[in-house]
Amino acid sequence: MIKNRLKEIWAQGRPTINGWLSIGNPFTAEIMAAQGYDSLTVDVQHGALDYSMLLPMLQAVRASGVVPMARVPWLEPGIIMKALDAGAYGIICPMVNTARQAAEFVSYVRYPPIGQRSFGPTRANFSAGANYAAEANDEILGFAMVETAEAMTNLDAIAATPGLDGIYVGPADLTFSLHQGRLAPAFDREEPEMIEALQTIVAACKKSGKIAALHCGTPDYARRAIEWGFDMTTVAGDSRLLAAAAGASVARFRELNGKPATAPSAAKSAY
Amino acid sequence: MIKNRLKEIWAQGRPTINGWLSIGNPFTAEIMAAQGYDSLTVDVQHGALDYSMLLPMLQAVRASGVVPMARVPWLEPGIIMKALDAGAYGIICPMVNTARQAAEFVSYVRYPPIGQRSFGPTRANFSAGANYAAEANDEILGFAMVETAEAMTNLDAIAATPGLDGIYVGPADLTFSLHQGRLAPAFDREEPEMIEALQTIVAACKKSGKIAALHCGTPDYARRAIEWGFDMTTVAGDSRLLAAAAGASVARFRELNGKPATAPSAAKSAY
Amino acid sequence: MIKNRLKEIWAQGRPTINGWLSIGNPFTAEIMAAQGYDSLTVDVQHGALDYSMLLPMLQAVRASGVVPMARVPWLEPGIIMKALDAGAYGIICPMVNTARQAAEFVSYVRYPPIGQRSFGPTRANFSAGANYAAEANDEILGFAMVETAEAMTNLDAIAATPGLDGIYVGPADLTFSLHQGRLAPAFDREEPEMIEALQTIVAACKKSGKIAALHCGTPDYARRAIEWGFDMTTVAGDSRLLAAAAGASVARFRELNGKPATAPSAAKSAY
Amino acid sequence: MIKNRLKEIWAQGRPTINGWLSIGNPFTAEIMAAQGYDSLTVDVQHGALDYSMLLPMLQAVRASGVVPMARVPWLEPGIIMKALDAGAYGIICPMVNTARQAAEFVSYVRYPPIGQRSFGPTRANFSAGANYAAEANDEILGFAMVETAEAMTNLDAIAATPGLDGIYVGPADLTFSLHQGRLAPAFDREEPEMIEALQTIVAACKKSGKIAALHCGTPDYARRAIEWGFDMTTVAGDSRLLAAAAGASVARFRELNGKPATAPSAAKSAY
Amino acid sequence: MIKNRLKEIWAQGRPTINGWLSIGNPFTAEIMAAQGYDSLTVDVQHGALDYSMLLPMLQAVRASGVVPMARVPWLEPGIIMKALDAGAYGIICPMVNTARQAAEFVSYVRYPPIGQRSFGPTRANFSAGANYAAEANDEILGFAMVETAEAMTNLDAIAATPGLDGIYVGPADLTFSLHQGRLAPAFDREEPEMIEALQTIVAACKKSGKIAALHCGTPDYARRAIEWGFDMTTVAGDSRLLAAAAGASVARFRELNGKPATAPSAAKSAY
Amino acid sequence: MIKNRLKEIWAQGRPTINGWLSIGNPFTAEIMAAQGYDSLTVDVQHGALDYSMLLPMLQAVRASGVVPMARVPWLEPGIIMKALDAGAYGIICPMVNTARQAAEFVSYVRYPPIGQRSFGPTRANFSAGANYAAEANDEILGFAMVETAEAMTNLDAIAATPGLDGIYVGPADLTFSLHQGRLAPAFDREEPEMIEALQTIVAACKKSGKIAALHCGTPDYARRAIEWGFDMTTVAGDSRLLAAAAGASVARFRELNGKPATAPSAAKSAY
Repeated sequence: MIKNRLKEIWAQGRPTINGWLSIGNPFTAEIMAAQGYDSLTVDVQHGALDYSMLLPMLQAVRASGVVPMARVPWLEPGIIMKALDAGAYGIICPMVNTARQAAEFVSYVRYPPIGQRSFGPTRANFSAGANYAAEANDEILGFAMVETAEAMTNLDAIAATPGLDGIYVGPADLTFSLHQGRLAPAFDREEPEMIEALQTIVAACKKSGKIAALHCGTPDYARRAIEWGFDMTTVAGDSRLLAAAAGASVARFRELNGKPATAPSAAKSAY
Repeated sequence: MIKNRLKEIWAQGRPTINGWLSIGNPFTAEIMAAQGYDSLTVDVQHGALDYSMLLPMLQAVRASGVVPMARVPWLEPGIIMKALDAGAYGIICPMVNTARQAAEFVSYVRYPPIGQRSFGPTRANFSAGANYAAEANDEILGFAMVETAEAMTNLDAIAATPGLDGIYVGPADLTFSLHQGRLAPAFDREEPEMIEALQTIVAACKKSGKIAALHCGTPDYARRAIEWGFDMTTVAGDSRLLAAAAGASVARFRELNGKPATAPSAAKSAY
Repeated sequence: MIKNRLKEIWAQGRPTINGWLSIGNPFTAEIMAAQGYDSLTVDVQHGALDYSMLLPMLQAVRASGVVPMARVPWLEPGIIMKALDAGAYGIICPMVNTARQAAEFVSYVRYPPIGQRSFGPTRANFSAGANYAAEANDEILGFAMVETAEAMTNLDAIAATPGLDGIYVGPADLTFSLHQGRLAPAFDREEPEMIEALQTIVAACKKSGKIAALHCGTPDYARRAIEWGFDMTTVAGDSRLLAAAAGASVARFRELNGKPATAPSAAKSAY
Repeated sequence: MIKNRLKEIWAQGRPTINGWLSIGNPFTAEIMAAQGYDSLTVDVQHGALDYSMLLPMLQAVRASGVVPMARVPWLEPGIIMKALDAGAYGIICPMVNTARQAAEFVSYVRYPPIGQRSFGPTRANFSAGANYAAEANDEILGFAMVETAEAMTNLDAIAATPGLDGIYVGPADLTFSLHQGRLAPAFDREEPEMIEALQTIVAACKKSGKIAALHCGTPDYARRAIEWGFDMTTVAGDSRLLAAAAGASVARFRELNGKPATAPSAAKSAY
Repeated sequence: MIKNRLKEIWAQGRPTINGWLSIGNPFTAEIMAAQGYDSLTVDVQHGALDYSMLLPMLQAVRASGVVPMARVPWLEPGIIMKALDAGAYGIICPMVNTARQAAEFVSYVRYPPIGQRSFGPTRANFSAGANYAAEANDEILGFAMVETAEAMTNLDAIAATPGLDGIYVGPADLTFSLHQGRLAPAFDREEPEMIEALQTIVAACKKSGKIAALHCGTPDYARRAIEWGFDMTTVAGDSRLLAAAAGASVARFRELNGKPATAPSAAKSAY
Repeated sequence: MIKNRLKEIWAQGRPTINGWLSIGNPFTAEIMAAQGYDSLTVDVQHGALDYSMLLPMLQAVRASGVVPMARVPWLEPGIIMKALDAGAYGIICPMVNTARQAAEFVSYVRYPPIGQRSFGPTRANFSAGANYAAEANDEILGFAMVETAEAMTNLDAIAATPGLDGIYVGPADLTFSLHQGRLAPAFDREEPEMIEALQTIVAACKKSGKIAALHCGTPDYARRAIEWGFDMTTVAGDSRLLAAAAGASVARFRELNGKPATAPSAAKSAY
């Protein structure tokens, strides 16, 4: 089985950069796979896509040598195993709030005797190399997302879960949950208590020998996260990158050409 | 965030008509969106479609200003949240039989502090207007389907669920369940005990300040439902409308042209 | 090879009714296939679909025993042959204005020695029964559309084309062309000169032993067309049937419920 | 409702052969449907496909008269009911480990009063013939997969579940689980204890009047399974058959043409 | 019929900015439609998409009020008319090298009496507002691409074509052709002779009252083009914007984190 | 730009084996890409697929290092250039009957100054490596199919076409055409005059320094073709391999289990 490059980089003490795919399209996946990320995660939770796009997207990034992962919609065994059979080398599971949920998640990601993953790596047999049955438990990564107040309460127990590879922090939901909706959900938090929470998570991961990963909005924030001890950082994603780049391009055009054309009167009643 | 027009109409004391989409196709969705419905619901439960079609269908109806909703396959958090992130302004959840299930449903539909919906409205950010995080809990509708004998037993408790907007009645399943399979499942019931059940549901909704909605087969039955106090009625759906209209057209042709052509001998062993 | 039922019905002197599929969806195709049409034509020209939907639509109607046909976008050999390889039992070709174009069309529809169709009925091998290579030239129907003033000028020559099975009249384009845009394009013409044109086409077909087919909007007009001598009539189509049925349902609802809800203010600048 | 042919064959005491569809494509489904299988199962669990492909695949096999079934990803009600509404005549459910899970599975497959399946057979109404509501409970097959050590412990209780039609054995997972990962997961086991396990399962089925089904790799092993008492055997599947046939063809070419061309240097770092 | 906003802006003497869609996806189309472009063109020629994606992309941008256009693969009537029926408000046709080709192009874009476009605006009927048949010839834009040495020779005759709205310059092909492959094809040319060629095209357009449009890579070059007299400029496109933004993000991450991780050894033999 | 491995192998005097993809599916493409073929051709002509599947299929085979090619439906510039932009390293064009058609074909495949291919390798930029504009004319293969009596008459002139890489023989159509439909179209001809025709084609290729390629049904016939001088042979294809393997498996099952189950009575009137 082809080795998981993320593990090799982390073994050398170096951080990795993960790209994020929210657009359900194999061509955008192939474009992203050419930009130098260490790994790419197809977001089956909040991304505008489902399994029917996950599959061709995993195929499209295969040639690049970038490690392919998937974030699943929820702690649901069906889609977790389908993503793995489709060739994902890692699963990020949202809203893991208790040690019991973390253990359940691990059980879906691992073959016996560790877990209860069902055998049938239909596409992975073609993409992941030989000996999948014997080596998948070693190469596949399982990340539990810590992103609620409840999860923070159970942080050490979650981090201690055998068979779990790491904790992935969703700062938008974590802020939302910790502040009961008072702070707007977003990445790259500057509130001292949020930074403290992130550092607490790093510490819990270090104690249990787990990887700490953070969803970031910019390379500069990612750099700070790495200084705090995070091993993997996601930096922006395809839909935001596209929107920002196109928006900046149009704004520059308008600026250069004087009086902006009247903005198209987007339907006020449209959804 | 763009306001939910259904809420505005109900606030004026007027009933709404909901269209039903069982065909998985953005063009049929766009056709239906042009017919004057107040809202359209994509049926991800019994419709011949899944999330991969829900997304482009929501996009196709956006320009019409009709309120887009989705019925989900089951009380499963993954698809409920995906439908919302895709821009649905309302979720109809089947087979909500207890107050606990109703509360669980609400928790999936609402952001903290009310619920546990995860933040990431990837498409809704583009379709629903600004300030989604702060206003979604107010604009998104959550309907629990009451359609079993068990749900009737728990009716008042379900209706009293905080954060729930309304009860949506599936008359086919409700009849099936109340009569243990003795009566054929269908809409537009005439049995006195079924009409009484519908009126009981309306009463429970009124008591708890909830919206009462009914799935109907004809505008005329919908009128009666509105007289009983229902606030929203679904009237037929795309697949039935198409089948009925085409069937009537062929029948008229056969009638006009004398001896009908031999009906095509559809395979008796085909499924 | 399974026999073409249309030929059998016409041999008995009876007219046929053809259904029209403009929605690109195999489920709507399956619904339409259950309504009793003698044949169904997938409209790859003006329909909201292309080959990628034609294929599963042909698969979906196979079990019904209804004769499947396709209208192609233009006199272009690539798509004509692809539609046939996908299992179509007839091709309707738009805008055939000269005898030379009619002969070219026939050459794409027929195998040698009659024509130049390339051999490779990849799906038809599975759907059309044994002996396809030898019998396809006999079972496959080729219709040239007469729908311009130029075509009317060349009518007899077009009708006389060897290997052509029939002429299919598009009344909207024919009216548009004959009146140089002065009359609105639509079906079911009542202008005496248009009815005369239709009768002229029927006469030309009879003279050459060809099938005369007309695109109609209603069963009643189709009946008149049959009285004029047309052998096949198309009666409405899926998208119009759906729009009309849904629109009537909403209108009835509004009528029953007094003051109509304010129509959704569809974006005036939307396209 | 069209009768389930599998039941008729078993009633005659004859075994059936089931084909397996792991490729998400209606054309491969149609090809497989022409090969003489008694039934075909679309594998929504390990197959490279999901509901969006299940639907057109069921449509594509309809004309063949082969009984269509689906294996679902997990004991999850949403997809089980969607597969049935799409026209499946049988559901194979993985990882049923306890009698309680078996009963839960049955409840999702059966309408009241037996189960809690929700009514809305949107496509089945068109493909399965008349009277679906009344006869579906009799015609639809529900198979629980026994494929873990825990399931073997509960074997008799699972087999005794009312409303369950049979037990389907996944030998790869069963071996994996029984031997705690020491033996490689694969079909067609030769270990005496595995053969004994299979025979134990057959015995449990016979005792409870249930159908015993086994996933096999070759017709020859299937023959042995039938001799042990299995009623239904799956023999290989589309993706393996294709890979094996193509691989053999290339190998033969290389053998005939002397020195093999240098194998394309497949990316060592690709996934 | 909804008016073509581009015409209104040009009538006011103001230039427009056109966005470019090479990614075959309705969600990226919707993202782009929110960035403030005056028009968006789906590139069916070089874009990684065909009609099957053009349709939902046009649906997805409808609500934005941005004018939707399509570049077709070649001067082929089938796809030109299909793009229009799908709701495009403008067609850009590549490689128009002679006045005769320009006239042929116009004939495909216009209804009689001007041209030979076939009537059947199946989706446009729903998206473009009432009275389509009568007004489409006035609202739909037809752009001929001048991008070869031959076209430059015939420039005035092409520009003079009745019914043509404008000339769209493809600078990559034009450079390629004018320099017989010696200069690399790209946008934003700085060679004096290329700038002169662009100015010659503008002059020819002005003389014939046609719109001059240029494909640009940056807002700054577009500004210069507008100063030369171009009325419409396309500024970059979705795939390039995404690649550039993602590449810059990764580069910044690598720069901040010292020694770059070893680039994934992309398969040297992969295609 | 990544070198075309086929050219390297032929330069070494060795023959190549080409695989054939008629199933429109990226997973079957990926399966086929793992079997050791030197090249794979996606059949956009007779295959059950179009551009919308060609694109993800090319993506799916990229990682394998197998040379990807496409057969186009006809000598139509739109699809030829789209296939190239999507990353194809070779185009096989059917029904090239004259030297003029061969030259036209070459003009669509080559950039200036050789041809008129339009520049915009949207996906190829990501898959084919750097310097595409300068090297594509050297790496891309163009094959003209000789498969009619007319083409045989013009054989030497076709073979002499500058810029053409080779002649690809379609034996089914060639037989059909040469014998005016008297012999059934199929591969692996044994008629002496057909073998002679094949050898004539090889001789014409050798004289003009062109590659000779033949579509074969078996490795054994391919071996004979190579002995006759063919440089490239296609050996069977995915749909035939699958049908044959599955059919053999079922036949073996029936043979082992005595009296065959009654064959499913496939609808006699179905298409």
